[in-house]
Amino acid sequence: MKLNERGLLVVISGPSGVGKGTVRRALFQMPHHDLVYSVSMTTRPPRPGEVEGVDYYFVDKETFLQRIKENKFLEWAEFVGNYYGTPRDKVDEQLDKGKEVVLEIEVEGALQVRKQMKEAVFIFLVPPGKKALYERLVSRGTESIDLINRRMKKAESEFLLAHKYDYIVVNDDVNNAADRIMAIIRAEHAKTERTIHNYIKMIGEK
Amino acid sequence: MKLNERGLLVVISGPSGVGKGTVRRALFQMPHHDLVYSVSMTTRPPRPGEVEGVDYYFVDKETFLQRIKENKFLEWAEFVGNYYGTPRDKVDEQLDKGKEVVLEIEVEGALQVRKQMKEAVFIFLVPPGKKALYERLVSRGTESIDLINRRMKKAESEFLLAHKYDYIVVNDDVNNAADRIMAIIRAEHAKTERTIHNYIKMIGEK
Repeated sequence: MKLNERGLLVVISGPSGVGKGTVRRALFQMPHHDLVYSVSMTTRPPRPGEVEGVDYYFVDKETFLQRIKENKFLEWAEFVGNYYGTPRDKVDEQLDKGKEVVLEIEVEGALQVRKQMKEAVFIFLVPPGKKALYERLVSRGTESIDLINRRMKKAESEFLLAHKYDYIVVNDDVNNAADRIMAIIRAEHAKTERTIHNYIKMIGEK
Repeated sequence: MKLNERGLLVVISGPSGVGKGTVRRALFQMPHHDLVYSVSMTTRPPRPGEVEGVDYYFVDKETFLQRIKENKFLEWAEFVGNYYGTPRDKVDEQLDKGKEVVLEIEVEGALQVRKQMKEAVFIFLVPPGKKALYERLVSRGTESIDLINRRMKKAESEFLLAHKYDYIVVNDDVNNAADRIMAIIRAEHAKTERTIHNYIKMIGEK
């Protein structure tokens, strides 16, 4: 029996290179969940095989800029000439259906969302230490030492933003981290501020 | 990896007859937990088979009253001439060891603890409706209709104290309720306010 029927917006963020994507994928592979992934809107043209509404919502620049004006994004950013954003209406639609909408996002975007949506749950995913992060970046094997050092520098400034989040989850093991996030989602649904309304209704009935 | 090493004081409370004891027992039967039960102190003489430090800490009335004066109880009450209380030092000892100390307690006592220990987690266990509570009280088969009606009346005033708790958990199914409580414990350990101290230490290390 669910006292909170509305889904949660779950924002998974954290320093560059911490493994947000890996943890998010592990989360979606867990049994019995009601998670959906938040699909971004973009002005970037679709790549072969990309499906409208699954990979992205594809729109032209004019539409995107108009939506920015109308405050229809929870967050947005421009990246090498293209716009990317999280459409508020699509997120709301899923939350109303009782789905947990998962947003995996960089620190800067997460803090934009925080301003727009107080009731979302903000999770800061962190490595079990700086050394672990460095090793993870190196082991990818795809980036130059110079780029890795720049990423580490960026991560170090992002490390200091943890206090802006509701929860800190250590990504020591990907399944552990996913388990903890699932526990956070269950617990948040039981929070008094989210349940009291329906609880009062329930005890009012004969 | 645990960023919060101190255990949690988990207060499970709720209206009379909701099934606190049953849920607590289900909780302790779950695998891989670090739960300990808070042992009360009492002036009541031990019954045959009761073990000091396991069932109760048995003390004389003078000791008990002295401890009240020294603010050494998280809560206490007198019941048919005997005193019962939750000794603060014993709870702290377990929390320091990283144990989650579970306190299963009536509403009045829980609200006393709330004043003494802000960092504890307060869970309000509720029946899935008034009718369900009534049926549960009747099905016990041990109480007169008159007593059941008095219990229902007490429960109705206790129902209104839900907003003083952090979480509301519906006892629709005992294992469900225990699962939710376990999720709450895991989530609370990840809360930023409990983890930030060790997190800052962790990222400060090379």
